[in-house]
Amino acid sequence: LPGMQTSGSKPCPCPSFKLREVASMYFTMIAVFLVILVVALQGSVPRESDFPYKVPLDPQGLLELSWNVSYPEQAVHFQLLVRDLQFGLLFGMSDRGEFENADLVVLWSDGHNSYFGDAWSDAKGQLHMDSQQDYQLLGARRAPEGLYLLFRRAFSTCDPKDYLIEDGTVHLIYGILEKPVHSLQAINISAIHRGLQRVQLLKPNITIPELPSDMKTMEIRAPDVVIPSEETTYWCYMAELPDSFPKHHIIMYEAVITAGNEALVHHMEVFQCAAEFDSFPHYNGPCDSKMKPDRLNYCRHVLAAWAMGAQAFYYPEEAGVAFGGPGSSRYLRLEIHYHNPLVFKGRRDSSGIRLYYTATLRRYDAGIMELGLVYTPVMAIPPGEDAFLLTGYCTDKCTQLALPAAGIRIFASQLHTHPAGRKVVTVLSRDGRERQVVNADGHYSPHFQEIRMLKEVVAVFPGDELITTCTYNTEDRSRATVGGFGILEEMCVNYVHYYPRTQLELCKSAVDPGYLHRYFNLVNRFNDEEVCMCPQVSVPQQFFSVPWNTFNRDVLKSLYGFAPISMHCNKSSAIRFPGEWEKQPLPTTTERLREPVPRCPPAPGSRPATPVPLNLGELRRD
Amino acid sequence: LPGMQTSGSKPCPCPSFKLREVASMYFTMIAVFLVILVVALQGSVPRESDFPYKVPLDPQGLLELSWNVSYPEQAVHFQLLVRDLQFGLLFGMSDRGEFENADLVVLWSDGHNSYFGDAWSDAKGQLHMDSQQDYQLLGARRAPEGLYLLFRRAFSTCDPKDYLIEDGTVHLIYGILEKPVHSLQAINISAIHRGLQRVQLLKPNITIPELPSDMKTMEIRAPDVVIPSEETTYWCYMAELPDSFPKHHIIMYEAVITAGNEALVHHMEVFQCAAEFDSFPHYNGPCDSKMKPDRLNYCRHVLAAWAMGAQAFYYPEEAGVAFGGPGSSRYLRLEIHYHNPLVFKGRRDSSGIRLYYTATLRRYDAGIMELGLVYTPVMAIPPGEDAFLLTGYCTDKCTQLALPAAGIRIFASQLHTHPAGRKVVTVLSRDGRERQVVNADGHYSPHFQEIRMLKEVVAVFPGDELITTCTYNTEDRSRATVGGFGILEEMCVNYVHYYPRTQLELCKSAVDPGYLHRYFNLVNRFNDEEVCMCPQVSVPQQFFSVPWNTFNRDVLKSLYGFAPISMHCNKSSAIRFPGEWEKQPLPTTTERLREPVPRCPPAPGSRPATPVPLNLGELRRD
Repeated sequence: LPGMQTSGSKPCPCPSFKLREVASMYFTMIAVFLVILVVALQGSVPRESDFPYKVPLDPQGLLELSWNVSYPEQAVHFQLLVRDLQFGLLFGMSDRGEFENADLVVLWSDGHNSYFGDAWSDAKGQLHMDSQQDYQLLGARRAPEGLYLLFRRAFSTCDPKDYLIEDGTVHLIYGILEKPVHSLQAINISAIHRGLQRVQLLKPNITIPELPSDMKTMEIRAPDVVIPSEETTYWCYMAELPDSFPKHHIIMYEAVITAGNEALVHHMEVFQCAAEFDSFPHYNGPCDSKMKPDRLNYCRHVLAAWAMGAQAFYYPEEAGVAFGGPGSSRYLRLEIHYHNPLVFKGRRDSSGIRLYYTATLRRYDAGIMELGLVYTPVMAIPPGEDAFLLTGYCTDKCTQLALPAAGIRIFASQLHTHPAGRKVVTVLSRDGRERQVVNADGHYSPHFQEIRMLKEVVAVFPGDELITTCTYNTEDRSRATVGGFGILEEMCVNYVHYYPRTQLELCKSAVDPGYLHRYFNLVNRFNDEEVCMCPQVSVPQQFFSVPWNTFNRDVLKSLYGFAPISMHCNKSSAIRFPGEWEKQPLPTTTERLREPVPRCPPAPGSRPATPVPLNLGELRRD
Repeated sequence: LPGMQTSGSKPCPCPSFKLREVASMYFTMIAVFLVILVVALQGSVPRESDFPYKVPLDPQGLLELSWNVSYPEQAVHFQLLVRDLQFGLLFGMSDRGEFENADLVVLWSDGHNSYFGDAWSDAKGQLHMDSQQDYQLLGARRAPEGLYLLFRRAFSTCDPKDYLIEDGTVHLIYGILEKPVHSLQAINISAIHRGLQRVQLLKPNITIPELPSDMKTMEIRAPDVVIPSEETTYWCYMAELPDSFPKHHIIMYEAVITAGNEALVHHMEVFQCAAEFDSFPHYNGPCDSKMKPDRLNYCRHVLAAWAMGAQAFYYPEEAGVAFGGPGSSRYLRLEIHYHNPLVFKGRRDSSGIRLYYTATLRRYDAGIMELGLVYTPVMAIPPGEDAFLLTGYCTDKCTQLALPAAGIRIFASQLHTHPAGRKVVTVLSRDGRERQVVNADGHYSPHFQEIRMLKEVVAVFPGDELITTCTYNTEDRSRATVGGFGILEEMCVNYVHYYPRTQLELCKSAVDPGYLHRYFNLVNRFNDEEVCMCPQVSVPQQFFSVPWNTFNRDVLKSLYGFAPISMHCNKSSAIRFPGEWEKQPLPTTTERLREPVPRCPPAPGSRPATPVPLNLGELRRD
């Protein structure tokens, strides 16, 4: 029978943990004694265009990751540049950047021989060789700037010890081995120089639209700023369009980073100011300074946003962002987040964003619409929850009224929560059936908010529903977290970028306040009258006095899944479309989208199950 | 790299459904054209002892299944006797005996050639060849009584199309092909002669205890009953022990089935009558007859129970069931369930149960304890639920008081619900941590209640908790199902058989009625005052008037998971142990048992992936 000789020795495709651990020990022992093949990239040096995405991993820029994504192969190719290799390094991924339960590649050296292997860390941070080697080493190459490691990883390996690479944020982790190690198990992961970097690994595979010949550029850059020697700085700089600048379309933008500061410039945004003010003061300084004029708070309309690892942003060829012309402010605010954990002093920076624009207006103006939850305390999260869900609705009634018959096309999305946010997803539903994910991030971090091009443009028609669900973690909090603007209050928002622009700026919801009042009454009566929820007290105060037992938690969840909603179907934050928007029924879902079944690579037998020794020569001893 | 040539061509170990369906079509096409090997059992005929368990599948006894269980191999070996083979048959398993989403072996013939294959049916009942062939044909043999098919199936195949064979009830299904079929796909599963049979496939592997030399037998048998020509009959017959019969221990019992009636006798129980009555009338007739004396309702203490497919029941060698002697009734009631769907007329039957007993008393008396829910309407299931859970507790406080320091040993268990029951499980918890499953049936059927020997004896000590959870389906009901004795009321009970016998007969719970009252008030106030739950109305009436929206359903679940309980920690159904048993806190569970990870057989490559043609000669044409 085919394969008979291997039966019993093949690793089982489904997990049998004890066997796996034995296998792992065995493979590591082999690694120490065997000398096999030196894997080295022969001949051609990969071109930079082979790895279009690049991000520094550590604040010093010692480790620099470049990568590309092959959707046909469902795999990522990584090129890791190690500028100053000592005795090896760790690189990998984990749920939220922790070093426990992480999926890792490890290059380690005992001073004479070097080994490369796919490893995993357990809940205590102890490293183990993975019996299924899913990071495939493709090459290693010494160059003047350092060592290049090339390796490949399928999105999904079906190995339960491995990280599943999905759309959205990926928390990359790295560690630097500064002493020789004699085995993988000897690495004390808590004692090494280590850190994390967030990126969107699975960049969309967009085709770059044709650019017009009359395209001009404008750079909105911080003018020779001395980066403060503090871990976190938000820098604000006001720029101004020329007088009587007519209406143009921004059709593309990209970051301009001062050379050497690649690891310090974390993210940047350009905001347009409100048209109702004729002028705005000049300013160039920290955004939280007392010297900052208050009027700058009216510069909140996003024109462009960039975060580490992001590439140039191209608008779809039918659309551009209108700027200039009557009814639009001449004033722009650049905000730069400098992340300087090593508190370098005296670094000068002139980074910013380069806008590409044209006077030849495209067919459609692009617009931004806000989906999710209204900023109101009626939507709250009990304390001590590890994954509490809140959902905001854009109902069929609102889209029926506000969208054109031909629909709109959503092409990009920026997800937004405050610090308790852990996941965000928006789903398009039609006739009660979920049809398509608009944007989802299962590893969302409030520290990494970028405008992401969608892999597929989403068409939304009148009568469709857009349902946005955020997952929150409040394990470190002792009282309820209510909705609102404050940093310790929460938000659940998806800013979707779409065309053609409509009057609909806001399509969000919150639970009906009358039903919330019934909830407080119920808590009052049910819990042995221990608490008095006086009705004259504010909603946050009432939430703060709820005794959070399992019943009160469960009933709040049930309330949010049942009570009617108040809809904000608005032309602007203050002006609603005409209609009855209070006590609206919750949209019902009769059919949910299925979880995608991950595609698995070929059977494990086809990959080497031992670490691969490398011939890198002797590594330096300190 | 090793294995490079195989990458991309190996079958994926994890499911990729589209690929699977293409493969399935391909395999079936091969089946029609290929002629491979004739698999036939050469030489020795298997002995009856090779297949210790036997059950007729259909009411005529045309199909008879024997099997054995190999725990080291984690596999079942089946021997299927087909008494009158026409053009093939289907045999398989499904969640609850349905022919959709079933896992099947099919033997089919076009009149010339016969084929055997592992197949599955989709949600519409259409058959497909399974790309992973997990029923292994071991042999086929013609004998005077019919065709014997021998095949083997691992408990778990890790093929998502396959049924996972677990402890508890398995719903076997069969179908008879009465016309030639040219392919598997041509079988119209709804048009064939078909049925289901419930068995416990994974019988425990018990070692038979040594039996004493003074062992005697007593047969409690129906005296030459004419089986009524009705689908369902419960037959009652009163028997009597000899005068001044001293205390004995029953140490074993088995069924005695009148030859030819194997497919009609569905289950039998022997009950002992209550000791408080000196005498009971004789009776021999249907249990639901108006002629049946009322006093027979006092004969409810189970002495022995047998159901189709069950073998002899042996008590552990340290224990026996006391009968005879002072304080114990001389009267026994035999109850036989005749299942006669083909309404045979005039069949005579003298089946019953043979008790094996000894005067040499064993060390311990065995006892029966009732776990689960009190029979009270406060525990209710909303209508239209597909899987609603109710949980009954035997708390640490009760076991602390009632169990001896050395603990008790549970060796057998009989699960019991009324018709809405779908699953039952009892878990042993100690210090808030779940330790061991006492008995679980994930395919429980109220039509198949047998006393099952546990695969592992469970030791229960003072302070342990026994938590029994039942899952109900009320999709076909339009009003709430409350707890109680009636056939449309529900129960959740596990009768555990244990030794040494203690005074504790009942360790069950129900939600505190005061908290349920608060629930009704809450429903009243929350739902726009549509309903008036007048407090003078009975609990069932209050449940019947609840408007069952998602909120009221969710809150009832939350209530049952939160509210304190009323404990019945009883010496008999009326007498409680001394102590405070009202408004007791719900036991908390800090650590749950993990779901067992199924062990998978060797990689799919080692099994043939095509159906196996058989040489059976031409089958008859009608």
